[in-house]
Amino acid sequence: MMKISVKECCEELKKMDDVYILCHRNPDGDTLGCGFALYNILKAMGKRSRVLDHDGLPQRYSFLYNGYDDSDFSPSAIVAVDVADESLLGDKLSDFKGKIDLCIDHHGTNKHYAKKYLVDSKAAAACEIMEKIVKQIDIPMTKQIANCIYTGVSTDTGCFCYSNTTKKSHECAGRMIKAGCDYALINRLMFEVKSHGRIELEKDVLNNIEYHFGNTCALIWITDEMLKATGVDDAELEGVASMPRQIEGVEIGVTIRQRDGGYKISLRTDDDVDASAICALLGGGGHKCAAGCSVDANLNETKKIILKAISDYTGKTEE
Amino acid sequence: MMKISVKECCEELKKMDDVYILCHRNPDGDTLGCGFALYNILKAMGKRSRVLDHDGLPQRYSFLYNGYDDSDFSPSAIVAVDVADESLLGDKLSDFKGKIDLCIDHHGTNKHYAKKYLVDSKAAAACEIMEKIVKQIDIPMTKQIANCIYTGVSTDTGCFCYSNTTKKSHECAGRMIKAGCDYALINRLMFEVKSHGRIELEKDVLNNIEYHFGNTCALIWITDEMLKATGVDDAELEGVASMPRQIEGVEIGVTIRQRDGGYKISLRTDDDVDASAICALLGGGGHKCAAGCSVDANLNETKKIILKAISDYTGKTEE
Repeated sequence: MMKISVKECCEELKKMDDVYILCHRNPDGDTLGCGFALYNILKAMGKRSRVLDHDGLPQRYSFLYNGYDDSDFSPSAIVAVDVADESLLGDKLSDFKGKIDLCIDHHGTNKHYAKKYLVDSKAAAACEIMEKIVKQIDIPMTKQIANCIYTGVSTDTGCFCYSNTTKKSHECAGRMIKAGCDYALINRLMFEVKSHGRIELEKDVLNNIEYHFGNTCALIWITDEMLKATGVDDAELEGVASMPRQIEGVEIGVTIRQRDGGYKISLRTDDDVDASAICALLGGGGHKCAAGCSVDANLNETKKIILKAISDYTGKTEE
Repeated sequence: MMKISVKECCEELKKMDDVYILCHRNPDGDTLGCGFALYNILKAMGKRSRVLDHDGLPQRYSFLYNGYDDSDFSPSAIVAVDVADESLLGDKLSDFKGKIDLCIDHHGTNKHYAKKYLVDSKAAAACEIMEKIVKQIDIPMTKQIANCIYTGVSTDTGCFCYSNTTKKSHECAGRMIKAGCDYALINRLMFEVKSHGRIELEKDVLNNIEYHFGNTCALIWITDEMLKATGVDDAELEGVASMPRQIEGVEIGVTIRQRDGGYKISLRTDDDVDASAICALLGGGGHKCAAGCSVDANLNETKKIILKAISDYTGKTEE
């Protein structure tokens, strides 16, 4: 388990061939962006590779893998991208645990499970590291690679909105635009387009929205029945949990999602309210502004339980 | 009417005092960002100024004018920012027509109405020009000025999504982040927060949504009654017209808004469908992907009229 530099990482890549590139489960724009950036980098170096993930390549990101050749081969090297911990590979890739030669990641929490690892926790997206690799190996920044890198940076920063966005993220995005990436199309696909089902689901969610504690708390819920009726899958639920917090004056946004016979609660809060402390009261945890917990009860009981926890922690009462 | 450079513009500003800074009507983040950037620049130079607009400073942008001193005085110089044409000043500022000493703008369509004008049509936001002015005059890029400039760049590029975004826009935003601007808060206020009324209105809109021509066209409408019931004003309607086009597979998004005894139609289209040509059939116009027209009819008739125009132009039929 050895920490390496961008230069050393590139030396490793030069030595490799027939590479399996592993993404994390529930793949997002950054892990897939890294995966296909690396696939294209290796291709430009005359090397064969495949991008693998537990869930299968999502249709939503198909613009990243136009013309991708998924023919199988026996790998002689394994690289993980944007994967902080081997457990995040998912069951279908669990055979690779302990066998990962190289990991390229930006999570400060990276478990250093790979033989060699390049981790830059200051990068807002692992794709920012991919740009450095392209430069170091000195291959052309093609439009295809620029699309991959831009997608990672744009999605991991919430289109440059989140507080993890840095000057370097913007500079990287600027260079990808200069390299000809389809940024307007990518942003439309990533942030704007919603399926009919998702629109129907949002309608249901908005029709059910509940306000509590003098409108400072908004609560929504999503049941299996609602998902079945609208044909929405988990991948498409992205962003729903942030809906209640978008409402003016709401300090605490609660999203209740049916799961595993009970309900999973996601809390999103203002800087002034500690979401992880509230979820800890119910055996959960997370970050200060985004935390979660699970409750083994029906929907109505779940609502009462989380509202009581919020009231207990904040002192808020119904007006 | 003389075209001037950034350097010459700064020489003009140095000569001025007691300045009225004029924004365009229905002020947005760029005109207000420019206005308050310039107010703060002039303040740093020891000069007095005021920011004026037809509609009064919108509450939504109050973070731009914290601590702003709005005391009146008799102006000895008039500057317009992000105003392409004097008619865009609105009635309340129409007395200044023909009296504008300096115009700083980024619209290629600028009418060159000011005595001296600095227009850079390559800038995605007029606020990008403001950054150059700060640098040229050599005053510190304070957090307050950085907030103003970031707001202009972020809002005029749709949070770096629109196709007008350039490498330079990203570089400018990066430098504003480095200067300490509250980018996460600004983006939350500009792009996330919705009032209770707006949420209620979106619920109504989604409940009424109509699909036509094999789901390639989505149609929504907003009546005065809906606005009254939800307490939403025109300023808050921003973004509603883009809702139908966000739906997967929709090539033509139609938004019908009650106005002036009839209905105003906004069309948003894919690259493949010419919105302005369709609206031209009804006496309107606009851009290829965003156009509008007005119809003097009731809601049901208006729907029929626009759907017929779409069908006539595209050859689409109901399946």
